[in-house]
Amino acid sequence: MNQIADLVDGARHHETRAIARLISLVEDGAPELREALRLLAPSTGHAHIVGITGAPGVGKSTTTSALITEYRSRGLRVAVLAIDPSSPFSGGAVLGDRIRMQEHALDSNVFIRSMASRGQLGGLSAAAPQGVRVLDACGFDLVIVETVGVGQSEVEIAGHADTTVVLLAPGMGDGVQAAKAGLLEIGDLYVINKADRDGARSTARELRQSLAMSTPIDGREREIVLASADRGEGIDKVAQAIDAHFAWLSTSGNLANRRARRISMEIEHLAIAALRSKMIAHADDLAALTSAVVDAKMDTYEAADELLEIFGRIKP
Amino acid sequence: MNQIADLVDGARHHETRAIARLISLVEDGAPELREALRLLAPSTGHAHIVGITGAPGVGKSTTTSALITEYRSRGLRVAVLAIDPSSPFSGGAVLGDRIRMQEHALDSNVFIRSMASRGQLGGLSAAAPQGVRVLDACGFDLVIVETVGVGQSEVEIAGHADTTVVLLAPGMGDGVQAAKAGLLEIGDLYVINKADRDGARSTARELRQSLAMSTPIDGREREIVLASADRGEGIDKVAQAIDAHFAWLSTSGNLANRRARRISMEIEHLAIAALRSKMIAHADDLAALTSAVVDAKMDTYEAADELLEIFGRIKP
Repeated sequence: MNQIADLVDGARHHETRAIARLISLVEDGAPELREALRLLAPSTGHAHIVGITGAPGVGKSTTTSALITEYRSRGLRVAVLAIDPSSPFSGGAVLGDRIRMQEHALDSNVFIRSMASRGQLGGLSAAAPQGVRVLDACGFDLVIVETVGVGQSEVEIAGHADTTVVLLAPGMGDGVQAAKAGLLEIGDLYVINKADRDGARSTARELRQSLAMSTPIDGREREIVLASADRGEGIDKVAQAIDAHFAWLSTSGNLANRRARRISMEIEHLAIAALRSKMIAHADDLAALTSAVVDAKMDTYEAADELLEIFGRIKP
Repeated sequence: MNQIADLVDGARHHETRAIARLISLVEDGAPELREALRLLAPSTGHAHIVGITGAPGVGKSTTTSALITEYRSRGLRVAVLAIDPSSPFSGGAVLGDRIRMQEHALDSNVFIRSMASRGQLGGLSAAAPQGVRVLDACGFDLVIVETVGVGQSEVEIAGHADTTVVLLAPGMGDGVQAAKAGLLEIGDLYVINKADRDGARSTARELRQSLAMSTPIDGREREIVLASADRGEGIDKVAQAIDAHFAWLSTSGNLANRRARRISMEIEHLAIAALRSKMIAHADDLAALTSAVVDAKMDTYEAADELLEIFGRIKP
């Protein structure tokens, strides 16, 4: 009778197709999404949300894939949301990556999905937390959000996980890059991947020095782990470090803080998305204000104030 | 007497330090910015705004630097705004790049500046158009906005230029990457850089095929130019193609359309920034709504609606 209720029911019973359908609703910013999320809400809050980010080429997907294997061996259900145009999970995998991913393709306790934000007003920043919320509600123990560590929205998204893992690789000038991309501010845990290569130790040393110059927000020292994800080396240590961070979050009370912060951000992005949809619905107002600016009758600030004023008068 | 008026006056008389100060105001989202932009407004609309974007490593900064040399040789004033954490203009240059940039360091008709968005509410999307507006008003003939072609905000920023140049390089799987990053939708002009390397022609061929599958928004065929910016080869052709696109924009009437679209976007981003600053000023309201969501008394959509409702009642 009610299609959305059926879909939500299916997703909560771990039906992969139903889960995939829900993620598509998120991507499309479909109107039914609101009801779906309302129905899913009571089931949320159980998953450990792990953000994985880093520059293209550091091995995010290989590491993610190795972590899936690690957590599956302990019987946990794992979901991956890849919001990264350079991720093989999003399509353009080289052969090796495809084979690695294939391992998980038949495992119904693993869900891997790339997400774009085609219809979503507010773009990725609005879509990503909703995608995470869906997967959390679908009973995954671990939800990994993989984003590319370049781009303001993308870095922010990974930074709003329970545990944010920043990947670096030796010899990519990554210390400086990471600092500039804002990656040094968001990591709870740093992985030097491709640690079998020359320069891994000096990358770790540089990173340690950079981290020492700033105080972690919540006072916990940020661990640095060396790994070679393509050989499966060190992945157990990465998983241990992720788990240790989560245990610390839970006992220190920081988990609740982080989740409240994430919800605040979600409310904020939805409010912005609602504002944007008003702009689309009232495109004539925006066009009139644009003309006024073009004709130098007002500046863009005045136009923005006027726009908000107009929207304040419109009842939803 | 009025410091901002003096600053604006200095900037309009091509004083590099005054221009740099104004860009800092943009970065900081300083309250004085509004007055500065109001004073600058009458001088805007003369520069040709060129967006340059592409994946890290394709040679954006080398190409930008070569283009500066090209346009300077014709006596034009050139400004560069680098909004790209991987750009050498933003700091982490390898030696060769630093030397290339050094060429322009003593030339007072060249202004190069990287821009972050420290204080800016609305982030890069709000800061970038304001930075461009400042440089336009300061009498530069060409304003180049360099962004990394990864990241939703960054790709959008480059896509809102008068002429958007997308750089690719052979052998980086760039065809697929470009499609996924949305670069095929925003380019007016494509440059295959490092064209002396193997695979340049096949990259061009693949790109041509990809482009053939979509219709350009404004109906103009998108040119593909081969260049080797580090050797200075093909840069004259790139400049010619940029100029040809601008000439077409001007005669076809599309220039006015694009600029109106850019102003609309700027109004939109300023409205969003104003909304965000209300969220900060009324953090207690957001915190109360967050608690309600945490306690499952409302969902995030209801909270977002309620937040906008509250803001509609608050007078500025």
